[in-house]
Amino acid sequence: MTSKHIDLNSDLGESYGAWKMGNDEQILGIVSSANIACGFHAGDPSNILSTLKHAAKHDVCVGAHVSYPDLVGFGRRNMDLSYEELYADVLYQISALQGLAQVAGTKISYVKPHGALYNTIATNLTQAQAVIDAIQHFDKTLVLVALAGSPLIKFAREQRLSVISEAFADRAYHRDGTLVSRRLEGAVLHDAEIIAQRVLNMIQNGGIESMEGDFTVIQADTICLHGDTLGAVKMAAKIRDVLLENKIEIRAFSR
Amino acid sequence: MTSKHIDLNSDLGESYGAWKMGNDEQILGIVSSANIACGFHAGDPSNILSTLKHAAKHDVCVGAHVSYPDLVGFGRRNMDLSYEELYADVLYQISALQGLAQVAGTKISYVKPHGALYNTIATNLTQAQAVIDAIQHFDKTLVLVALAGSPLIKFAREQRLSVISEAFADRAYHRDGTLVSRRLEGAVLHDAEIIAQRVLNMIQNGGIESMEGDFTVIQADTICLHGDTLGAVKMAAKIRDVLLENKIEIRAFSR
Amino acid sequence: MTSKHIDLNSDLGESYGAWKMGNDEQILGIVSSANIACGFHAGDPSNILSTLKHAAKHDVCVGAHVSYPDLVGFGRRNMDLSYEELYADVLYQISALQGLAQVAGTKISYVKPHGALYNTIATNLTQAQAVIDAIQHFDKTLVLVALAGSPLIKFAREQRLSVISEAFADRAYHRDGTLVSRRLEGAVLHDAEIIAQRVLNMIQNGGIESMEGDFTVIQADTICLHGDTLGAVKMAAKIRDVLLENKIEIRAFSR
Amino acid sequence: MTSKHIDLNSDLGESYGAWKMGNDEQILGIVSSANIACGFHAGDPSNILSTLKHAAKHDVCVGAHVSYPDLVGFGRRNMDLSYEELYADVLYQISALQGLAQVAGTKISYVKPHGALYNTIATNLTQAQAVIDAIQHFDKTLVLVALAGSPLIKFAREQRLSVISEAFADRAYHRDGTLVSRRLEGAVLHDAEIIAQRVLNMIQNGGIESMEGDFTVIQADTICLHGDTLGAVKMAAKIRDVLLENKIEIRAFSR
Repeated sequence: MTSKHIDLNSDLGESYGAWKMGNDEQILGIVSSANIACGFHAGDPSNILSTLKHAAKHDVCVGAHVSYPDLVGFGRRNMDLSYEELYADVLYQISALQGLAQVAGTKISYVKPHGALYNTIATNLTQAQAVIDAIQHFDKTLVLVALAGSPLIKFAREQRLSVISEAFADRAYHRDGTLVSRRLEGAVLHDAEIIAQRVLNMIQNGGIESMEGDFTVIQADTICLHGDTLGAVKMAAKIRDVLLENKIEIRAFSR
Repeated sequence: MTSKHIDLNSDLGESYGAWKMGNDEQILGIVSSANIACGFHAGDPSNILSTLKHAAKHDVCVGAHVSYPDLVGFGRRNMDLSYEELYADVLYQISALQGLAQVAGTKISYVKPHGALYNTIATNLTQAQAVIDAIQHFDKTLVLVALAGSPLIKFAREQRLSVISEAFADRAYHRDGTLVSRRLEGAVLHDAEIIAQRVLNMIQNGGIESMEGDFTVIQADTICLHGDTLGAVKMAAKIRDVLLENKIEIRAFSR
Repeated sequence: MTSKHIDLNSDLGESYGAWKMGNDEQILGIVSSANIACGFHAGDPSNILSTLKHAAKHDVCVGAHVSYPDLVGFGRRNMDLSYEELYADVLYQISALQGLAQVAGTKISYVKPHGALYNTIATNLTQAQAVIDAIQHFDKTLVLVALAGSPLIKFAREQRLSVISEAFADRAYHRDGTLVSRRLEGAVLHDAEIIAQRVLNMIQNGGIESMEGDFTVIQADTICLHGDTLGAVKMAAKIRDVLLENKIEIRAFSR
Repeated sequence: MTSKHIDLNSDLGESYGAWKMGNDEQILGIVSSANIACGFHAGDPSNILSTLKHAAKHDVCVGAHVSYPDLVGFGRRNMDLSYEELYADVLYQISALQGLAQVAGTKISYVKPHGALYNTIATNLTQAQAVIDAIQHFDKTLVLVALAGSPLIKFAREQRLSVISEAFADRAYHRDGTLVSRRLEGAVLHDAEIIAQRVLNMIQNGGIESMEGDFTVIQADTICLHGDTLGAVKMAAKIRDVLLENKIEIRAFSR
């Protein structure tokens, strides 16, 4: 993608009761889109509402970060839910978040599945269909955020759902555009400067160098940043700064 | 109340996963308002959605049956939630139900707190305020269902919230209009004929005979019926029949 | 198996809070082994304790019916837990049940994984290892109940764990000894007389007629019966009666 | 208490899934007793087991930190459980922890109720009875840790349960020996040096200066320290150092 603007997103609202996670207020000063936990993998109503109010204050777009119902596993473990179960679970989460968002003075613009659900529906089209239907039955104008290069993108677009491609700033890619498994060495990058340059490369040149050394096309409409540690927040700020220096506007895709 | 119409309500959507509770489809053929569990004391998204669709099919009004977060205790145990916690919990539940209701082809007309929350806010005005604020911030046109004769009614009306008084068909009342504690003998009535006559008496004469023998005023806009057993469904049908024979129309208060 | 005795087992303790499931007291008058829910797919502490006391009173052996942590899915959905997570989850459940059993005047004799976990570890030896290690680290004398004919049996025995083979009274089998999928017609049998004769056949002749028509060897040390409906209880009683008439003793394998 | 030794305890094992809480390994190098979460207010099986292994390695005594079933509220909200519910809940938690402790190479020596349950049973003797019975039915040799000066101490001892009095290092006390409510200014102390001197005073002189200025008797067999922040860990180390400099041995009460 050679556009002059990009969306930066981050996972927020992931505190739960007494357990704090993330630096929501700081990261909201950097990103343009906030994926807000809906209570199934993280987020209790009070913490969710608080994050939504901060997002509204920072004029950051919000999306529903829907998940499998697995609090102790943080939504990171595959679960073979039936179509009916997954459909209703996603609908419940979007609905709950939309009501809280409205009271917080904002509204949901998109849905980004979380963790194992995100990875599974990239290729599992039965579960994907449940998510697509839940979104479309709730509000046809909502956008789905999907893994760049995944079969899900075409599958959802064929059903007239708006889809946004997502790339990961700190992850290595194979030459075929798939993510390098976290189990392999080099899968996650740690140098802020290198990561910022890769993001810039994605935006300016439409791709990056793959693990195998080739240039790989990565169609990215939004870039996922982390905010769970202070180091992550610093890295996110660094990426933003490099983009701004290079005249790349940071703008929510939904604007 | 000497009106010629009355609302009959019942608690529905209380199945949870593999556990079935209630006879939702049958009771929906009898009542005019359905209090639907929202997932905190009962109800998973699939079961809730299914019950909402049945309610829409039967053209029965639906309300959010919000609760403390206590699945194993079925919302029947007092919990001293803070204002912020309760406010956000109620907002989350109403929101989730409203989204599911919309997809099911209906919409929420009212909120009826469940179990321990219902009893607590009848007199605890701090918790009551959290419920009132959650309702009003979500949708000012929603109606609150409250225990007939309770301080909550005046308190909520002073804040311009519409309130409906609820009486219980099968419960004994003291001469001061308060419910006889379930721990006392005679607190719960079991004879369908007697119960039906008491309901008729409430509607036609604005009150019933109290446990102490006096006539007691019970201002009831809606009567709560049970549907958890087949016996309960039969009793509900009996009450409906007696009302219809006496030219009392059964009509949702929100219509 | 041509022995003159057999074990009959059933899943019990599956009520949760206000939701009742099963007819524990009646089924305890029929079976010799009771698989007791441990709180992860079903069973709250009060209901578990109550069922354990009934089992002790009926002198029925008890086992830990351990599960994935999935209450709303009743442990019926696959979850890809890590070895460490599954190991600790199983250990926690066995431990909790053993303490309650001791207070109820009995003790755990075996472990039977539930639902999706039962099916998964029949062939997934990574998850199987987590279950085996949890059992052996807790108490080397505990017995594992495993699907008759599954690779798990040999795998666990090689590690010196005692294993008992389980067959299902009401299920059809393929000629290779595997269960017919519930999605296929004829997978579940419903005629009590036929089911009782099949159980008798398994015990007296060491196998049954498969769906394909051949005689298939089924090595069964214990037979699983259901108790969730009154019809199921009647069928269980019928099976017991047929066995007793044929001089088959019903005896817990752990005795 | 003018003894030359004291027990120092801290709440550990409170991480839950992806959410980390506390600095368990560091605090285990300071305290003599570790109150381990049992899964009801905090702690999942994996994290609990890990903390138990660290406690065993440091030769720190472990106790069951039992709670109301309220994960999102971290066990800090009162719940009116029935005797039967609370009894079974406590039994389940002690049992689960004991099994995990045994595998970790240690064993439970005591039970310390957590949060709202701790405060409630200090004076509510119905709930206290449920906790006492659960402990005694599980293992009569277990010790109960109770708030210094509370009616619970005499009540439990009359039933032949061993009870240990607990004081809080960083809390202000009234002249009658009760804790100053956290809602009042000055309720929580923050200066490590002052706190260490107060602990020393409790041990050497059997009491401390109350908020009202009088010397108040505080009978403390164990002192509760916090380990949730790095500042808390430093304060705990400071208290230990001051005690050791003053020839006070730090020794588990259960040794």
